Amino acid sequence: MKVAVIRRAHFNAAHRLHNPTWSDEKNREVFGLCNNPNWHGHNYELEVKVTGEIDPETGMVVDLGWLSSLIKEQIERRFDHKNLNLDTEEFKNLNPTAENICVVIYMILRQQIPQKYDLHVRLYETPRNFVEYPA
Amino acid sequence: MKVAVIRRAHFNAAHRLHNPTWSDEKNREVFGLCNNPNWHGHNYELEVKVTGEIDPETGMVVDLGWLSSLIKEQIERRFDHKNLNLDTEEFKNLNPTAENICVVIYMILRQQIPQKYDLHVRLYETPRNFVEYPA
Amino acid sequence: MKVAVIRRAHFNAAHRLHNPTWSDEKNREVFGLCNNPNWHGHNYELEVKVTGEIDPETGMVVDLGWLSSLIKEQIERRFDHKNLNLDTEEFKNLNPTAENICVVIYMILRQQIPQKYDLHVRLYETPRNFVEYPA
Amino acid sequence: MKVAVIRRAHFNAAHRLHNPTWSDEKNREVFGLCNNPNWHGHNYELEVKVTGEIDPETGMVVDLGWLSSLIKEQIERRFDHKNLNLDTEEFKNLNPTAENICVVIYMILRQQIPQKYDLHVRLYETPRNFVEYPA
Amino acid sequence: MKVAVIRRAHFNAAHRLHNPTWSDEKNREVFGLCNNPNWHGHNYELEVKVTGEIDPETGMVVDLGWLSSLIKEQIERRFDHKNLNLDTEEFKNLNPTAENICVVIYMILRQQIPQKYDLHVRLYETPRNFVEYPA
Amino acid sequence: MKVAVIRRAHFNAAHRLHNPTWSDEKNREVFGLCNNPNWHGHNYELEVKVTGEIDPETGMVVDLGWLSSLIKEQIERRFDHKNLNLDTEEFKNLNPTAENICVVIYMILRQQIPQKYDLHVRLYETPRNFVEYPA
Repeated sequence: MKVAVIRRAHFNAAHRLHNPTWSDEKNREVFGLCNNPNWHGHNYELEVKVTGEIDPETGMVVDLGWLSSLIKEQIERRFDHKNLNLDTEEFKNLNPTAENICVVIYMILRQQIPQKYDLHVRLYETPRNFVEYPA
Repeated sequence: MKVAVIRRAHFNAAHRLHNPTWSDEKNREVFGLCNNPNWHGHNYELEVKVTGEIDPETGMVVDLGWLSSLIKEQIERRFDHKNLNLDTEEFKNLNPTAENICVVIYMILRQQIPQKYDLHVRLYETPRNFVEYPA
Repeated sequence: MKVAVIRRAHFNAAHRLHNPTWSDEKNREVFGLCNNPNWHGHNYELEVKVTGEIDPETGMVVDLGWLSSLIKEQIERRFDHKNLNLDTEEFKNLNPTAENICVVIYMILRQQIPQKYDLHVRLYETPRNFVEYPA
Repeated sequence: MKVAVIRRAHFNAAHRLHNPTWSDEKNREVFGLCNNPNWHGHNYELEVKVTGEIDPETGMVVDLGWLSSLIKEQIERRFDHKNLNLDTEEFKNLNPTAENICVVIYMILRQQIPQKYDLHVRLYETPRNFVEYPA
Repeated sequence: MKVAVIRRAHFNAAHRLHNPTWSDEKNREVFGLCNNPNWHGHNYELEVKVTGEIDPETGMVVDLGWLSSLIKEQIERRFDHKNLNLDTEEFKNLNPTAENICVVIYMILRQQIPQKYDLHVRLYETPRNFVEYPA
Repeated sequence: MKVAVIRRAHFNAAHRLHNPTWSDEKNREVFGLCNNPNWHGHNYELEVKVTGEIDPETGMVVDLGWLSSLIKEQIERRFDHKNLNLDTEEFKNLNPTAENICVVIYMILRQQIPQKYDLHVRLYETPRNFVEYPA
């Protein structure tokens, strides 16, 4: 009887899409405005879904307070009000596309959430563009 | 060629998280503010997803008017403007966590919706906390 | 050159609409389901609007961090996860309608926000029912 | 390592639910107000989900600009500000229920999106009624 | 001590923008896609704001149940699932722009709501286009 | 008989709050995380309200297509996917707080919109923080 619990969080960050092995021209062609050398930014909305059995003693899959704190410490503190390209270890050498940010967030949280739970991450870059991992 | 049809509904209710086999101290420690003996409450948003084949005569999986009425009679009339702990049979002896409410709603609707359709329930306790069953 | 700054916050609470000078019958007739003696509840969404001149040094009307903390201390701590009728001084003898809650929140914040700023409060009881004071 | 990318779009259209092999009476009985002979309409919101591997050179599953243009050309230009029953080939002989519109949009896009990607379509007829294909 | 109470409602309708005293060419030029002779449609969202004193006996400005029923009878029954140009008296000879629909709704409700209350109407044609009367 | 017409638009940008006449310490103290020297960013949502008489020939206050294009050319092209501090003339010497951005957008649009119309601008920096000018 598996139930999924979803917690929504958010962080604001600057980023730039860029492949350093390409010419400036090719970068502009592929990434368009998102390649702006001076960065732009987003209000990222994050949904973390944890799936598991209901604990009969608490009636909960996981404590949402715990999940909310985990997201705050592991994700918001790392990325909120940051320049993803310049201020974070994770995107020093990885293009901070929504896809890559979503996978990175999954990898960070996967190490903190017990293996008996399934984990899924959805990341909104804008209300009209969003990604999910694993799909 | 299976299509899913989702209907969104809502109800407002009071509740309190509490395990009667624990001490007051442990209840406060585990459930925090949600353990307040005088209850608190939520605007619950409910999404009921019914999956099946499109009926070639109507072009519909199920009649959304029928589904909407079913939710009104079976769920809203039971839980809307109620104290889940005091006013309902379902949560007299079951902790009304979002997880348990979601499973209970699934169980009630599953008996009313023909077996040829799959059923999934998503319940929002707040816009930032929600659950799904089956996961 | 007056600019308005709005901060949105939220709290969850139980309440009951009731006029103790009326018969039970009249209470049920006027307040309907909202008169349920065992309470029901809502996710209240609150918008606090502060209007004033932009400070040329900061470029801000008021520090949103300060406003956010003020709302947390003065309003959320007082009302969040509470039974408005039983757990608060403000609604011991005042019917906790959305209108009255909105005016009470205005009165509390008005004493904390310097007089040179105008203040307006909007309170959502549900996404479809909300009130504003002053109108 | 499959990631899903979702793009949200919208179009406004008029439609009428009607089965020409039925009597007017049966049409009214089954489709209710949606059978109005003079049509009614909706703001349709569309979510197109494309699932695949991240391209290591771009960090993207598909270029969202490309996906957005594809939806514009193939779906919005075809259905936006149209009467689905009268102005489109697709619904001349097919009842434009949300279910059928969703499947038709899937079929159109499936031919344009390389087979290595999975495709899912969600269509909102109203914020409270929506469908998904494949389920 | 005036408080404003807002109730949100909705209706779905087809319409067409057209000035019968103009040539087809000029109509297309001015109204673009909205001039489509076969109509298109919208999910209209309506906010009705009633402003007045709080009644000390009820703690309410007006009974939201009454306001909700009034909107249902006077506005939804008239316009929901209708073709505004063909099915309504109000827009037989009046162009159903968002501006005109908003003023018409105001005029209808103004006759039903006691003069001691102020009345304002906001109408969303889409989430990104909306109008207010009186301004 | 004045009616207000509102158009919602959006742009994504990076920015940093900073007063160059202050020490780094004071900047950090006043602006907190928003002072990050490497910038952060937002999805700005913009509402432009134009108020005037309904033109009896068109039934419209202003053509929403025209208003939408004006916002695109004057505001989105200038600020979308830009670093407000580095890439724009407007904020080279003006702190890009939400308040200042809102006033700047008003000033730009005021020169393009005929004087017979009133103009108001609302700018969302996040869904929970927003500003209005004139107040």
